Amino acid sequence: MSRSGPQRREPVTARTVRRLAPDSQDTWEDELVVEEPLEIRLGDEALAVLMRTPGHDMDLATGFLFSEGILRDPSQLLIVEYCADVTDDAAGNVVRVRAQDPDRKAAAKARREVYASSSCGLCGKTTLDSVRLMAPPLVPPPAFTATMLRGLPDALEQAQSLFARTGGLHAAGLFDLQGRVQIVREDIGRHNAVDKVCGAMARDDVWPLSDRILVLSGRASFEMVQKAAMAGIGTVVSVSAPSSLAVDYARAAGMTLVGFVRRDRLNVYAGDVTP
Amino acid sequence: MSRSGPQRREPVTARTVRRLAPDSQDTWEDELVVEEPLEIRLGDEALAVLMRTPGHDMDLATGFLFSEGILRDPSQLLIVEYCADVTDDAAGNVVRVRAQDPDRKAAAKARREVYASSSCGLCGKTTLDSVRLMAPPLVPPPAFTATMLRGLPDALEQAQSLFARTGGLHAAGLFDLQGRVQIVREDIGRHNAVDKVCGAMARDDVWPLSDRILVLSGRASFEMVQKAAMAGIGTVVSVSAPSSLAVDYARAAGMTLVGFVRRDRLNVYAGDVTP
Repeated sequence: MSRSGPQRREPVTARTVRRLAPDSQDTWEDELVVEEPLEIRLGDEALAVLMRTPGHDMDLATGFLFSEGILRDPSQLLIVEYCADVTDDAAGNVVRVRAQDPDRKAAAKARREVYASSSCGLCGKTTLDSVRLMAPPLVPPPAFTATMLRGLPDALEQAQSLFARTGGLHAAGLFDLQGRVQIVREDIGRHNAVDKVCGAMARDDVWPLSDRILVLSGRASFEMVQKAAMAGIGTVVSVSAPSSLAVDYARAAGMTLVGFVRRDRLNVYAGDVTP
Repeated sequence: MSRSGPQRREPVTARTVRRLAPDSQDTWEDELVVEEPLEIRLGDEALAVLMRTPGHDMDLATGFLFSEGILRDPSQLLIVEYCADVTDDAAGNVVRVRAQDPDRKAAAKARREVYASSSCGLCGKTTLDSVRLMAPPLVPPPAFTATMLRGLPDALEQAQSLFARTGGLHAAGLFDLQGRVQIVREDIGRHNAVDKVCGAMARDDVWPLSDRILVLSGRASFEMVQKAAMAGIGTVVSVSAPSSLAVDYARAAGMTLVGFVRRDRLNVYAGDVTP
């Protein structure tokens, strides 16, 4: 089979970050995991758009087709290559697989999130723009104190069930602007935990969630920040790392995004946080 | 809005597990996070099937509709309830939302994985059956020694980039039956890391991956074990917890599934492992 040459996007990027500890603060260029959309085409048809870290994209596209049962034997693979007929923005983010006799029924089942068609570009920026168009207007979050924010992960953990803590379930919690816990939900999928939290509020007729803080037990990927934005939540607090796209979205939308929150420090990726 | 009564499935379940340490072994009933499919219907139309931990399912369905932009205001919500017109197996796994004026375009974009229609049941068992039908025949894995398996996470970590270790990228590695690392891939999405590993092998014309061990830096959810099965991989080793459905699949398919692997111990959830 033929392979196209490298056209790789970087898997790691730098963003300026502010670290606040009780008696110090500094600013440095932090390395973040890159998150960008990859469109997988089967022949000329868009099959799926996955959020991924760039690198080994043709392996990813190929592996996706095999794990979805669309291909079953390497001899079916004809060409796996980056698409050349895309906008400059989308270069390196669209992989085409040409294959013999793919399973059309399995392909129909696997089709997902193909809305971000490459005709309108497919890159981090267009992804951000499409979400910003969909999200309700954001009420700018106030300047929080680091002292208050540093206490939120502990409060989230205390509100979790013992099993969730020991069994490694993901948790998402909604807090008011004073840092008081309002609702906590758990799930094996971290996106589900966020949907459970927001859905509970909507069912209680509280919407949008402008005056709320979303606290995550895990990492702040783009999908987490996107869900917050769709609910009107202006502040996301994570105990772990954000992705590049999560940071870029938070900055563009005027959100506050804080990561690696510990009892004695935190990193500010977007927004206004006072020591 | 009206709410249906509780019809909950349990979020936690027990399975018999064997723990092997160098000079001891014991068997006990371990608690596992339940993972089961939830079908979300918008009116009478299946919109999405999510793998989730049961509990607060109506919040999840509602939150999904809001985060996807299909609903924008709680006043649109008319009824959120478990569907009664499903098979006994699927009871509690199908939620119907009736809503005023949902965004049809957003609904079309959000539609995903609706193949497991409730006409054929929607529960853990039917999910397992449908994957077993798709997966290639499994070559039964040999009886591994715990000594060999305990070394695999360290070998995976050593093969990761420094950034992946510090930045919290997920890693997946393929090992041969003697425990030698063959290929390691990283991604912000753990399912992507597995697809990258398997796709690389398929592109190198090595398929199926019967004589291989898949090692995961994170947890063994059903999707991870499913991807292994689709690649013909008989053995999955995780440093973290498996879900109930991952264990059930591994047992039904004759796979070996090992979790919580540390230097001095491991848990055997399925398959034959000697001290």
